[in-house]
Amino acid sequence: MNKNLFALKGNIVYSQDKNNLVTAASSYLVCEDGKVAGIFKTIPKQYEGICVEDYGIKLIIPGLTDLHVHAPQFTYRSLGMDMELLPWLNTYAFPEEAKYAQVEYAKKAYGRFARALSASATTRAAIFATLHVPATFILMDLLDQTGVQAYIGKVNMDRNSSDNLIETAEQSALDTENWLKECVGRYKNVKPILTPRFIPSCTDELMERIGELQRKYNVPLQSHLSENASEIAWVQQLHPDTKCYGEAYQKYGVFGGNCPTIMAHCVHPNKTELELMDKNGVYIAHCPQSNMNLCSGVAPVRTYLDRNMRIGLGSDVAGGADLSIFKAMADTIRASKLRWTLKDKALAPITVPEAFYMATKGGGSFWGKVGSFEEGYEFDAVVLDDSNLEGSEEFSLQQRLERMIYLSDDRNVIHKYIKGIKTR
Amino acid sequence: MNKNLFALKGNIVYSQDKNNLVTAASSYLVCEDGKVAGIFKTIPKQYEGICVEDYGIKLIIPGLTDLHVHAPQFTYRSLGMDMELLPWLNTYAFPEEAKYAQVEYAKKAYGRFARALSASATTRAAIFATLHVPATFILMDLLDQTGVQAYIGKVNMDRNSSDNLIETAEQSALDTENWLKECVGRYKNVKPILTPRFIPSCTDELMERIGELQRKYNVPLQSHLSENASEIAWVQQLHPDTKCYGEAYQKYGVFGGNCPTIMAHCVHPNKTELELMDKNGVYIAHCPQSNMNLCSGVAPVRTYLDRNMRIGLGSDVAGGADLSIFKAMADTIRASKLRWTLKDKALAPITVPEAFYMATKGGGSFWGKVGSFEEGYEFDAVVLDDSNLEGSEEFSLQQRLERMIYLSDDRNVIHKYIKGIKTR
Repeated sequence: MNKNLFALKGNIVYSQDKNNLVTAASSYLVCEDGKVAGIFKTIPKQYEGICVEDYGIKLIIPGLTDLHVHAPQFTYRSLGMDMELLPWLNTYAFPEEAKYAQVEYAKKAYGRFARALSASATTRAAIFATLHVPATFILMDLLDQTGVQAYIGKVNMDRNSSDNLIETAEQSALDTENWLKECVGRYKNVKPILTPRFIPSCTDELMERIGELQRKYNVPLQSHLSENASEIAWVQQLHPDTKCYGEAYQKYGVFGGNCPTIMAHCVHPNKTELELMDKNGVYIAHCPQSNMNLCSGVAPVRTYLDRNMRIGLGSDVAGGADLSIFKAMADTIRASKLRWTLKDKALAPITVPEAFYMATKGGGSFWGKVGSFEEGYEFDAVVLDDSNLEGSEEFSLQQRLERMIYLSDDRNVIHKYIKGIKTR
Repeated sequence: MNKNLFALKGNIVYSQDKNNLVTAASSYLVCEDGKVAGIFKTIPKQYEGICVEDYGIKLIIPGLTDLHVHAPQFTYRSLGMDMELLPWLNTYAFPEEAKYAQVEYAKKAYGRFARALSASATTRAAIFATLHVPATFILMDLLDQTGVQAYIGKVNMDRNSSDNLIETAEQSALDTENWLKECVGRYKNVKPILTPRFIPSCTDELMERIGELQRKYNVPLQSHLSENASEIAWVQQLHPDTKCYGEAYQKYGVFGGNCPTIMAHCVHPNKTELELMDKNGVYIAHCPQSNMNLCSGVAPVRTYLDRNMRIGLGSDVAGGADLSIFKAMADTIRASKLRWTLKDKALAPITVPEAFYMATKGGGSFWGKVGSFEEGYEFDAVVLDDSNLEGSEEFSLQQRLERMIYLSDDRNVIHKYIKGIKTR
């Protein structure tokens, strides 16, 4: 007997590939065992009598993926964006993250983050916590309850930080291994991910230990790459034997290949790095708002898409002010236009279908068959009510999606299903 | 006996000048005869017993000014931003504006615009209607009821448009003169403003007639200037005797000086134009989101501020997708950062106090003493409830304002006073 069998009825939009949106007006999206069974104009014979939630003229889209977000920075999002990356970390990010040594603070602050993420259209996320294991468990506990499918990382950092936010390589590796072990069997929805902060934060010894843990426990890894010119120069000083920043991860076996890897930003890849990322199948978390706010630049997204590289979008709170991946789509398009206008006519601006693809199927594929409504994909669906914008009846489904990208907020997200479970 | 005498109590923030925010925690903002009488820690003796609306910890800021917005384009905001200016006008803007020949359509569509503007933090606006006089009156009637102090313009355009959206020079001038006469004494809150669309839309004959009307009726004027490279080249072809786009207005006496003038965009001024704008006191309506969406570029706002030129912000719906002037502030900052990062390190990014100044006192000064809470300024005040962002108690008033700039929407705007009248 089938479990978890039901249908949503409404106006369906999803990405088939980066250039094509599929729309199905007034159709049934059938969920069977947590997966998409198909989209139908009328309920087929084999599904007769199943429960149908009829959402009328509302939009139904795949859940969105946030490939890069710092949960502990959520509290001060939108503040202190008057610096570039390295001074910004020391002035704002590190002092805030140090507070998560206190579990009471972590409970309060992560509670806010979990509520906001839960209210958003995001159904999958790759999240940085802090170096503190107890606080990381608090975040994992809270997120697990939301149903959001999240990879969450205890951060590793043993150099170039403040005295109150640093570990030794030995302690960092031990804490990480114990944390990985404690995670086993503990969660339904969240999973651990190795999270060396970035090369300047991790000694060679620590990177070595993280590489070993990756191979021993077979967990994925997330970090930062080529965000900012000063950062890249610093990495070159720290690893003078490398031809690019990415090689400093590659040295330890944690730059894609057998290690599923998300690298945030990738704003300034050189040719060697671009080819290495491509060859190794590294996931790019494009974070356009953060890259604007911190004066990092604009990543060559058109190049990544043309090469069919793996790419999704990230809010990068609190480099980004906003947790909304709809806004990340709009920012992707706008930043690409300014890059084209001000800097480089060779890379054409990103289109709405391309931005939507990255926000759904592009980033979602880090979790497998996620981010689309093709048969066999995990049933992550978001129901959007756009009636507050008025005039829905005048527009095509693609236009209504476009209005959501530019104008939606959490009010428009009225229901959310993750792996076939209604979470909102 | 004093009329219209009351106080608001709350956390007050306003711009003293472009570099300095003034904050007054838990203070009284006194209104007398529609003007600011002062800000006080305790109610002074002469105001004892006046009505006090106590807004607790909520923020009270001056109303925002939208120096450039196309009301008839509101219906399709966020759509069709896949082109640059000139094809965009022909493909999206002109066909939509042609619909306003029908008064029933105008009533419905302008109703939406009026509701949205009323719900926003904007208290002053300079608005383009269409060339249709009956529809323009509908817009003026609707806006007058909202209390928003708006300049509204019947558009003039007698060339380079579609067959269903064009006038003769003669008819345009006659319609405009009759419209100006009919406006006299008709409205409490809105006023007419001359609105030649832009040089490519107006023959020399029409510009001549508009200049005459300006001098005869002493009304201000709004138009577009140097938004896009193709547009600028076209104006140069149309007026080969000019050294800059601005001179094509100057020829007809409608480029500042004795004619109070708002020019939208000003993205690409040459040296001659910059100096002419400065000398003539032309108001610049900076529209960063539109300039990103339509790939126009980023205006040299730092140059304008350094020269103490007159500048405010515009949403430029529907080149801009969003009517919020808070978003225009955030976009001003972000666009200036990308300009600095990608193009020109000589012009430092715009700061939060500078963006807030432009959105309040900068643009507001087109109406006189508007956009500040200094004594004698018109009493335009907006009450903001930022409790949905959580943690207000942890932040300074400037930080709370910053959060509103990056994260607010119409939910945060809970009350609005314009010239001392509560409109929301």
